[in-house]
Amino acid sequence: MPMNPQELTSLLRDVAAGNISCETAQAVLAGNENKDLTLDTWRQERTNVGEVVYGQGKTLEQIRASLAELGRHHPVLATKISTAHGQELKNLFPNGCLWEEARLFCLGADLLAADPKAPDSEVLIVTAGSSDLPVAREALGTARFLGLGAHLVSDVGVAGLHRLDPHLPSLRQARVIIAVAGMEGALPSVLGGLLKAPIIAVPTSTGYGANFAGLTPLLAMLNSCAPGVGVVNIDNGFGAAVLAKKILTRQE
Amino acid sequence: MPMNPQELTSLLRDVAAGNISCETAQAVLAGNENKDLTLDTWRQERTNVGEVVYGQGKTLEQIRASLAELGRHHPVLATKISTAHGQELKNLFPNGCLWEEARLFCLGADLLAADPKAPDSEVLIVTAGSSDLPVAREALGTARFLGLGAHLVSDVGVAGLHRLDPHLPSLRQARVIIAVAGMEGALPSVLGGLLKAPIIAVPTSTGYGANFAGLTPLLAMLNSCAPGVGVVNIDNGFGAAVLAKKILTRQE
Amino acid sequence: MPMNPQELTSLLRDVAAGNISCETAQAVLAGNENKDLTLDTWRQERTNVGEVVYGQGKTLEQIRASLAELGRHHPVLATKISTAHGQELKNLFPNGCLWEEARLFCLGADLLAADPKAPDSEVLIVTAGSSDLPVAREALGTARFLGLGAHLVSDVGVAGLHRLDPHLPSLRQARVIIAVAGMEGALPSVLGGLLKAPIIAVPTSTGYGANFAGLTPLLAMLNSCAPGVGVVNIDNGFGAAVLAKKILTRQE
Amino acid sequence: MPMNPQELTSLLRDVAAGNISCETAQAVLAGNENKDLTLDTWRQERTNVGEVVYGQGKTLEQIRASLAELGRHHPVLATKISTAHGQELKNLFPNGCLWEEARLFCLGADLLAADPKAPDSEVLIVTAGSSDLPVAREALGTARFLGLGAHLVSDVGVAGLHRLDPHLPSLRQARVIIAVAGMEGALPSVLGGLLKAPIIAVPTSTGYGANFAGLTPLLAMLNSCAPGVGVVNIDNGFGAAVLAKKILTRQE
Amino acid sequence: MPMNPQELTSLLRDVAAGNISCETAQAVLAGNENKDLTLDTWRQERTNVGEVVYGQGKTLEQIRASLAELGRHHPVLATKISTAHGQELKNLFPNGCLWEEARLFCLGADLLAADPKAPDSEVLIVTAGSSDLPVAREALGTARFLGLGAHLVSDVGVAGLHRLDPHLPSLRQARVIIAVAGMEGALPSVLGGLLKAPIIAVPTSTGYGANFAGLTPLLAMLNSCAPGVGVVNIDNGFGAAVLAKKILTRQE
Amino acid sequence: MPMNPQELTSLLRDVAAGNISCETAQAVLAGNENKDLTLDTWRQERTNVGEVVYGQGKTLEQIRASLAELGRHHPVLATKISTAHGQELKNLFPNGCLWEEARLFCLGADLLAADPKAPDSEVLIVTAGSSDLPVAREALGTARFLGLGAHLVSDVGVAGLHRLDPHLPSLRQARVIIAVAGMEGALPSVLGGLLKAPIIAVPTSTGYGANFAGLTPLLAMLNSCAPGVGVVNIDNGFGAAVLAKKILTRQE
Amino acid sequence: MPMNPQELTSLLRDVAAGNISCETAQAVLAGNENKDLTLDTWRQERTNVGEVVYGQGKTLEQIRASLAELGRHHPVLATKISTAHGQELKNLFPNGCLWEEARLFCLGADLLAADPKAPDSEVLIVTAGSSDLPVAREALGTARFLGLGAHLVSDVGVAGLHRLDPHLPSLRQARVIIAVAGMEGALPSVLGGLLKAPIIAVPTSTGYGANFAGLTPLLAMLNSCAPGVGVVNIDNGFGAAVLAKKILTRQE
Amino acid sequence: MPMNPQELTSLLRDVAAGNISCETAQAVLAGNENKDLTLDTWRQERTNVGEVVYGQGKTLEQIRASLAELGRHHPVLATKISTAHGQELKNLFPNGCLWEEARLFCLGADLLAADPKAPDSEVLIVTAGSSDLPVAREALGTARFLGLGAHLVSDVGVAGLHRLDPHLPSLRQARVIIAVAGMEGALPSVLGGLLKAPIIAVPTSTGYGANFAGLTPLLAMLNSCAPGVGVVNIDNGFGAAVLAKKILTRQE
Repeated sequence: MPMNPQELTSLLRDVAAGNISCETAQAVLAGNENKDLTLDTWRQERTNVGEVVYGQGKTLEQIRASLAELGRHHPVLATKISTAHGQELKNLFPNGCLWEEARLFCLGADLLAADPKAPDSEVLIVTAGSSDLPVAREALGTARFLGLGAHLVSDVGVAGLHRLDPHLPSLRQARVIIAVAGMEGALPSVLGGLLKAPIIAVPTSTGYGANFAGLTPLLAMLNSCAPGVGVVNIDNGFGAAVLAKKILTRQE
Repeated sequence: MPMNPQELTSLLRDVAAGNISCETAQAVLAGNENKDLTLDTWRQERTNVGEVVYGQGKTLEQIRASLAELGRHHPVLATKISTAHGQELKNLFPNGCLWEEARLFCLGADLLAADPKAPDSEVLIVTAGSSDLPVAREALGTARFLGLGAHLVSDVGVAGLHRLDPHLPSLRQARVIIAVAGMEGALPSVLGGLLKAPIIAVPTSTGYGANFAGLTPLLAMLNSCAPGVGVVNIDNGFGAAVLAKKILTRQE
Repeated sequence: MPMNPQELTSLLRDVAAGNISCETAQAVLAGNENKDLTLDTWRQERTNVGEVVYGQGKTLEQIRASLAELGRHHPVLATKISTAHGQELKNLFPNGCLWEEARLFCLGADLLAADPKAPDSEVLIVTAGSSDLPVAREALGTARFLGLGAHLVSDVGVAGLHRLDPHLPSLRQARVIIAVAGMEGALPSVLGGLLKAPIIAVPTSTGYGANFAGLTPLLAMLNSCAPGVGVVNIDNGFGAAVLAKKILTRQE
Repeated sequence: MPMNPQELTSLLRDVAAGNISCETAQAVLAGNENKDLTLDTWRQERTNVGEVVYGQGKTLEQIRASLAELGRHHPVLATKISTAHGQELKNLFPNGCLWEEARLFCLGADLLAADPKAPDSEVLIVTAGSSDLPVAREALGTARFLGLGAHLVSDVGVAGLHRLDPHLPSLRQARVIIAVAGMEGALPSVLGGLLKAPIIAVPTSTGYGANFAGLTPLLAMLNSCAPGVGVVNIDNGFGAAVLAKKILTRQE
Repeated sequence: MPMNPQELTSLLRDVAAGNISCETAQAVLAGNENKDLTLDTWRQERTNVGEVVYGQGKTLEQIRASLAELGRHHPVLATKISTAHGQELKNLFPNGCLWEEARLFCLGADLLAADPKAPDSEVLIVTAGSSDLPVAREALGTARFLGLGAHLVSDVGVAGLHRLDPHLPSLRQARVIIAVAGMEGALPSVLGGLLKAPIIAVPTSTGYGANFAGLTPLLAMLNSCAPGVGVVNIDNGFGAAVLAKKILTRQE
Repeated sequence: MPMNPQELTSLLRDVAAGNISCETAQAVLAGNENKDLTLDTWRQERTNVGEVVYGQGKTLEQIRASLAELGRHHPVLATKISTAHGQELKNLFPNGCLWEEARLFCLGADLLAADPKAPDSEVLIVTAGSSDLPVAREALGTARFLGLGAHLVSDVGVAGLHRLDPHLPSLRQARVIIAVAGMEGALPSVLGGLLKAPIIAVPTSTGYGANFAGLTPLLAMLNSCAPGVGVVNIDNGFGAAVLAKKILTRQE
Repeated sequence: MPMNPQELTSLLRDVAAGNISCETAQAVLAGNENKDLTLDTWRQERTNVGEVVYGQGKTLEQIRASLAELGRHHPVLATKISTAHGQELKNLFPNGCLWEEARLFCLGADLLAADPKAPDSEVLIVTAGSSDLPVAREALGTARFLGLGAHLVSDVGVAGLHRLDPHLPSLRQARVIIAVAGMEGALPSVLGGLLKAPIIAVPTSTGYGANFAGLTPLLAMLNSCAPGVGVVNIDNGFGAAVLAKKILTRQE
Repeated sequence: MPMNPQELTSLLRDVAAGNISCETAQAVLAGNENKDLTLDTWRQERTNVGEVVYGQGKTLEQIRASLAELGRHHPVLATKISTAHGQELKNLFPNGCLWEEARLFCLGADLLAADPKAPDSEVLIVTAGSSDLPVAREALGTARFLGLGAHLVSDVGVAGLHRLDPHLPSLRQARVIIAVAGMEGALPSVLGGLLKAPIIAVPTSTGYGANFAGLTPLLAMLNSCAPGVGVVNIDNGFGAAVLAKKILTRQE
């Protein structure tokens, strides 16, 4: 997709200011990467969730071209955006919304503001520790992008279970729980033994040594003695929010 | 819990007929194992799904005592029942329902008959191959035990995707999909890219060599490029059905 | 070590009764295996815990010879005894004590009776589920063999944490806690966040699929977010009891 | 092999311009590394594919010496070239062809232009997503280097299978398919169930968390329920193209 | 598919002779398992290789029903058949061909006789040791079933490479090589460095200790320093033969 | 928790001096991160060890806020502090104590000075090699923070066991041993066979190749043939000291 | 190789006595398996150690044919012989020597008697525990077969290092040490730090839980902090003895 | 050990020239690290190989102090030296010998010159590819340090076995072979099948993808079908040379 004049002006200014390198600008102008892209613009209709741009391992130009193409008529989200790419995308799309800690960037939606239409919390995202916040925020931002009412409760891991107490009313009211935990990943088991709502468990790579970058909480969550827990990939806050969306959409 | 006279008569007859060994009968009469059991009779109320007896690695007497205690007032299910234990449980509880291929035994419910109250299929269980049937049947039996309307479609793996075609209407109508697959475990990705319903993915230990007893489909499902897939443990048809129950119950 | 006349008579009677095979009797009489044994009779003095016979992968004659030699002057314990070996040892040493479910056999001590000298529980062994009982009993029997006051509380896993409540006074009173759990192995974390006593965590091979025969609870326990947890090998109830002994002995 | 005067001049100019460090120039001039090289100049004759320089973990001088020696009479290819080495090789061999995104460098051939002699596509390289492009391009460049007619189709992964539709005629016409995929690696299974041509599957390290740097698609491809799939190492686009060459050469 | 009278008579005779158990006969007559089967009768046309029955983890009745249905009009093959099932299938289908060492059973073809139409060997199957023979025979039988000219050379592993010498002419003449090896799996690398034909590498589970049931040769083959090697699953002789078929069919 | 004037002045000075970046200062002033923190101020009372700040994967502001809040009335420790964060914390809390090699920072205690109240060594920390010192120092600093009398003996690994000799009196006198080792991790086995005190084993990530970043000593310690060894996570000197504290506190 | 009359008579007698099944006798007589064997009769000359028959996963007839062929002119050894095969081989070759505990069978040598020509011990085989004896005996028998002077010292593992003391003179005198150990595998490190002779380390599969069938001692031995240790496969006593032979032969 | 005046002068000059940082100089002068060192000066006498300094994960001051102390009376070697430390050590010990590509530094010996006393090659070091050279050079330098006659032959991997031919005379003459290989690690098997000398196999981390940083050649070498191969850790050229030294020393 060729750039429009406004985008072109912005691009050139950023080059002048040193925000974007000459090589990237050259690639953007030549559009020589996006000839290989085949976008799935029909996915929203089939699955209720449109195509999202997975940012890891992609060049800036690949991400830009996908966002520009998919964002023509609908909001579009990109995940796993590096810090460097995030700043450059903000320069390329000044109206876009960047949430650096969540590694999210989107066009056409506000990831940082809760949806006022959802006064009662539909999705409650719970973390075991504050090191799990980046993944929890990826889930939170994605949930907001998908139009869900989502809230975040942090730091209620099993080393101090009493911290769950003040949150029990919200936990019982939530229609879906997303439990985000690293280390031994015990939080979903505890919640699954206390609550009626389905639990989506997200292991994180928080930990060291025999944690093996999230393998430990992943295995623990798959072996939860409390049934009714669905597990997603390590650090996959995005996937958890999409599953929540699919669960909640079916109810309408 | 002591046995009632009818159970006692039945037990003695089975001993006489050689169906139950003297040692087991002795243990049953002495009740010397169940002193260590602490049952969670309150779980139904907290989580919508009552305590279920996990049969693997337990002695016959442990399973019997748990079933008898939990089954006093409510139906109760036991999973991962060995063939030998299954026959003995049928002797101990002649009114119980044994589904050998699903490794399930229950009191107070019929695992083999679909619920007539659910004409439209709420849960559709789909298998990649016929080797996945035992796990799929564990999910089917559990779903029926929990009162869900559940159906089973077999043998629609990705090596012949056209076999999905005749089932697309049911797949689109189902409120939850349980996708059961071994080998490379690609079925949930394909379904997740086609359907709006949440997908619960169950890897099975079907396969050999570098399958590593289900590790391959487990990893594949966790890495599904179609988001909105929640994964349970290898061969855990039971857990998939409980998650389906929790998803669907929230809708009422 | 040659057999005494009484042992010889007993051996021959068992051969006559078919309890012991001719080959084993021959080996016992010839004593042709124990020439390779080098026993560590000095270990009790160095480490407070004498040499114990590890029964797995050993022949009956190897176990017999070690027990006979080590048991001359002191009580002696054998662990991981198979069912078949257990019965044969009982025949060879009629005064010995066999606890089949714990896979323990000993000379000179009673594994099944608590020590009356320890009215207040010094070691409290806690299991997550009843499938963990064999390992918990190995810890219990070993603790009794070592002269500790030990008690067992079963089935208080994290899927129903309220079951911990009636046991909190004993848990707070215990000087060492041994927490035995399979599946996701979360119990030590929960206890470690509640109690002052050191926690010895024993992962068990209870579980299936992605449990990997105890790897999951092992990793979870090593990554416990509640510090102060020392972990032993999978299914190693024996080692946990020895560590408890070493901790408690230092206090006198 | 000593440098010729033209190479020497070029080298010195690059040193002057700062393109090549003094240390490297010194090594090149001294030729002190290549005494350890033993080149396999006879491989082309034995196996139809001449020796190729594997660039990873080698010093610039090792790569230079091998290229110079092997490239005396025939074209020669180097793979897994780092960005830094690529630029320096381009300086050392101004007539060489560098394809940075494919990490390839060669003498005596053009990696970027398709062979006009192959109007009907003999090898079709297919990727699941655009993150797989670097590996697919390694396959594409190698295939061109080997004289094959090769084309690339991108972004037709299983999350949107309809994207395969417009490419089915080419897929059915291709004599060999190279399927490149990361994440769950399901593409080769789907293609293997649809097509008559042999499928060469290339897992990529695209993904995160429980992907384990390509282990997941590798295992999935080895367990493909569609038989007739040959798998190469993770990210090994080069090996896939060589296998295609060997398959196609046999046909003449 | 109901049985025809001849099959029925045969079945009843086998029950009378004790060759087939009552339970299996009952299942066969009721046909109560095959309602879950969805056969892919169109696969031959799409992929040149018809559906094959994977026998592992299936009941006898599942295998029987699939063979009967698929074998109506075309030959059909079943793989990974247990010894017990093999004998029972031979009873059920007296005209079928059972190759016990290869774990193969088929209807409508002769697995044990080479095809006279292929005087020059098209596929040469080579094993490192005689422990690899069962897998090599699975490849050989499958190749014959698919109409290929296939021969087997055994015991030419790298510990005595001179044993390759007398076979070099056949190796150079073969159009496809299937190299079957356990232990360190080095044979495909050696052959790949000597020959022009494509090499299909089959790791076997031959070995012990740090072999990890075939993981070692699998990894070694994927890392072959001789390019042009396509690897299939551990012990997957069947898949290797199908890949050979696909490679060779394209040549006509 | 808002900053007090003194902290504010210090912060601004550091910004002026370039010690702290503007972004961090902004975050500190806005306090916009710590709204997600839920601190467990009650932990000291329940478990004898108060909440400690785990520094890995946290932002500077998260660590600062936790330290400030937890440190209001009691000393507080932070572990796994990066070099960069360590310097910035020293700037933010000039009275704090930073031990860079141990990756520790604390308020209200001196990590570098042994406690004069403990003339006889209660905890003896022993390392196999000098590469294990950073982890041993984490244990030493934590033990001092917790009020234990702790000493360190270095470089007594099994390749030169005679080096243990001069330390045997202290080893026999110590009430708890913390054994820190990488490579093959044999030290705890040797000590466990020599001493009466409980052994806490800490595997370290010292080593390369098949060490797998500490997996080897972790497995070795779990399989110690000397019973009475409790293992903590790889590189977890902190957890070892807390376990020592719990063991020793029970003795008073 | 056809049987001679004496062998034939022996075979038929064993069939009559039920020692050998009809099927095996049929195979032996038809010689229909050994057509696939390619024996390496030249290996002795090349490598100082002739071809040995690896018995695992082979049929009785494969083993018999290889022994008969290789044993025509020289002694020949077979390893990893199952109990059942061992008895049948003893029947087929009444003059052969079977050492059941070592899983060895040989023709033309006596595995059970030490070589009188080697009064000073050239190879000393040392085990950590008595569970390691089967592997140590495989090494011992192989060493004797190869003409080495070999002795065995058992049960000197690191849990009681003083047990090494009485053996230090022999250890210092030995020209090669073979150290056999399971569990944590620390023995080779201790010996490597004490002795001048090269250490060949043999990990065994003795242990349970996180031992992973010998993986733990294998990794520990590879990471030995005492250099000069060469490691062979888990349970590979045979390979250790061959390496000893190659080391010692060079000295003459 | 305090510095002598010459060392002090050199140190200060380097600080002035910026070669050594102030912090390091401070540590060196204060000698505040080496108080934790316990050197094993007696090792040479016990094991024929004196203590060597393992440089990985150590600070410059730790390495310096060890070298200075151990090097008082004898030559001393340090391994796994980083590039940065290597330069600084060269500054601190101007008479030392640095071999950067081998990551070795030593005092009192010349690593780069072969020993003229060993005209016939005692140790032959062979590599599969030129990427394996750094590890081979570590073996070569260590062998020279230990006084062995050692030579290096490079690039004779199994993809072109004919390259072995010109080296067969030296290979047959060598008393010990060190075979260094990455990728599939097949070289030791090939050599073990050809030669009488003992083979020491060194896997390297050369490779990518499913090589897993040397795990593949490590496993392959442990499973070598040619017996008589002793394996050391991945990339452990040093250990291979020490084992060669111990093998060869015994011969005198």
